Amino acid sequence: MPMKRYLMAPGPTPVPEEVLAAGARPILHHRGPDFRELMSRCLGRLQEVFRTRNDILVFTASGSGGFESAVVNLLSPGDPVLVVSSGEFGERWSALVSVYGATVDELRYAWGETPRPEDLRARLAESPAEVVVVVHSETSTGVVADVEALATVVREAGALTVVDAVSSLGAVPLETDSWGLDVVVAGSQKALMTPPGLSVLAVSDRAWERAATSSTPRFYFDWEKLRASLETGSTPFTPAVSIVVSLDAALGMLLEEGLDNAFARHAALGRACREGAKAMGLELFSPDEERSAIVTAILTPDGVNARDLVLALRERFGITVAGGHGDLGARMFRIGHIGYYDVFDITTALAAVEVLLAESGVEIERGAAVARALEAFRESAGVV
Amino acid sequence: MPMKRYLMAPGPTPVPEEVLAAGARPILHHRGPDFRELMSRCLGRLQEVFRTRNDILVFTASGSGGFESAVVNLLSPGDPVLVVSSGEFGERWSALVSVYGATVDELRYAWGETPRPEDLRARLAESPAEVVVVVHSETSTGVVADVEALATVVREAGALTVVDAVSSLGAVPLETDSWGLDVVVAGSQKALMTPPGLSVLAVSDRAWERAATSSTPRFYFDWEKLRASLETGSTPFTPAVSIVVSLDAALGMLLEEGLDNAFARHAALGRACREGAKAMGLELFSPDEERSAIVTAILTPDGVNARDLVLALRERFGITVAGGHGDLGARMFRIGHIGYYDVFDITTALAAVEVLLAESGVEIERGAAVARALEAFRESAGVV
Repeated sequence: MPMKRYLMAPGPTPVPEEVLAAGARPILHHRGPDFRELMSRCLGRLQEVFRTRNDILVFTASGSGGFESAVVNLLSPGDPVLVVSSGEFGERWSALVSVYGATVDELRYAWGETPRPEDLRARLAESPAEVVVVVHSETSTGVVADVEALATVVREAGALTVVDAVSSLGAVPLETDSWGLDVVVAGSQKALMTPPGLSVLAVSDRAWERAATSSTPRFYFDWEKLRASLETGSTPFTPAVSIVVSLDAALGMLLEEGLDNAFARHAALGRACREGAKAMGLELFSPDEERSAIVTAILTPDGVNARDLVLALRERFGITVAGGHGDLGARMFRIGHIGYYDVFDITTALAAVEVLLAESGVEIERGAAVARALEAFRESAGVV
Repeated sequence: MPMKRYLMAPGPTPVPEEVLAAGARPILHHRGPDFRELMSRCLGRLQEVFRTRNDILVFTASGSGGFESAVVNLLSPGDPVLVVSSGEFGERWSALVSVYGATVDELRYAWGETPRPEDLRARLAESPAEVVVVVHSETSTGVVADVEALATVVREAGALTVVDAVSSLGAVPLETDSWGLDVVVAGSQKALMTPPGLSVLAVSDRAWERAATSSTPRFYFDWEKLRASLETGSTPFTPAVSIVVSLDAALGMLLEEGLDNAFARHAALGRACREGAKAMGLELFSPDEERSAIVTAILTPDGVNARDLVLALRERFGITVAGGHGDLGARMFRIGHIGYYDVFDITTALAAVEVLLAESGVEIERGAAVARALEAFRESAGVV
């Protein structure tokens, strides 16, 4: 038998068979009525998932392409921007904003810290910004920020809030309209259970007003050109048609489950993963709190190199988890539990880690991790 | 029975079932060894198709995203650029280059004309340019330019040649290295028989040298960042993994057919389509010559609105062909024959057009188009 494969990285994530099958249907022409109808429905479904009445944009690009669209449409050279940064993706935003000539200030935390609204308030009072970038789920550390509280501070300061929700949209609560978020950027390949290739955005009226005056050159990532075309159900340039078809199918599944149910499931999965890891005696890098429902970052015991563990999980068991970025590579591994994921994926990951750690001579109470994970899931989700 | 669908637009084009199935396989992690191996093989196959030893780049984007990457990597504001333009895509290039502040000169022809090397030589002598953009296949008109001759003129003038080969790569001869092409941009969704979502480029050493000094800001479309990552088999940002898997499968099929055989097939398909249309008494807008092997642009008889014909083909027979852009909309329709396409697709398109025109009262010798198309295909391809 060929080795079974388990994709447990924090993105791209496993795609349901029905969604893969939808993407394998014969190609639709992007200017034909079938596609226009499908794209229009997909935009409506995205509004439900973003919980917004704002315009939705769909770019054929990685999530970082969506980030870039926010930068080139909102900012002109010299504009003061504050990036709240506590990991890989915060740093990427700073680099991106700098490239386009805006003046970047960083509210920078150590990797793994959770941004604090009071720090943001103090920083904005000291050095005002017109646009503030907040990473909702910092995939490199497992931290999920309190975007509602942070956005309130930004709005009080009269600035616009841009939220990187690539790995959070559809997994943890995000209320675009009631939290007053101006731009929310996500990707197809995380909780939306779709292959990578599309970046989706929700854009507020305030953001459109700002975009109308931005002087940064843009063509492929121009928002206004895309909006005008999407109003007719198509796009200015040939989109990744098959991924749009997949996305529409996946959004249908997500909305059928119900967003609140999906949030509860992710919270329970995160709880199960953290409790299981602790029951094995492992130390968490991710905060051990309800919001940390996207990816669990775990430190290996002394004497166990995380890189070796990640490699062995893949080679021995066909399980792909993520390592740690940069200096954390030797100590950290990350189990993603976003999207098409249930509690038995958690127990599979934990069981495999247990086998390898026990083989490495780590003293582990065998079976405790899986038992505790199942118990924690039931406590949280009320099932299993 | 549900209506059968026939995608006969000049892109996106039909995707072989095997390629659709490849794209529906479980998602690979883009930093894992399986994907790295596949991406590396795919880059090698692309080199064969581009007929080059130059570096290959793969962006998750529409073809126009690939165009933009060429502009922002090669050009600084004020750089003199000449765009050879004879249709929709030439005009798009001019708009794009202008947005980024280069100084655009246009060698502009009426839509449907074929660019002439002697005009290019005269223009470059009169107003030198550092970069010249040439559209290989102008999908809006059916014209395929003599890129070899045009590139020779550009090289003699000491400039760099950028070729838009989105709809031509894999369908008509294109020799990146022996013609001395500096940048060739293509897309996954035409003759490469893959769903849309990837733009692929071949970049020469001269182009890399120029890119090293360009001052235009870039992040998502930065060539150097992508090259460094592709050398390890991955990409800086999560790519459209499933489309890369499809592309690899489709390139395997194309190379198994053999590029020269694919070129001969496309030439024969173009010949069959033009001969069939003429046998029906229709006037061609596309040049009636060997190179015109991508899309056949045809004018409707007096009294027949092409928009009505295009609509009826779709609603009555499930056949998607393209209309004409702008002013040509009432008179022109375009049959694409790129990629996964054989002579019976041509006869299907012609037969359906014949039925509708006859119903509109056009005097047509019934059956002549299909008979002549089959005959012309055999004369050209030596089979059927």
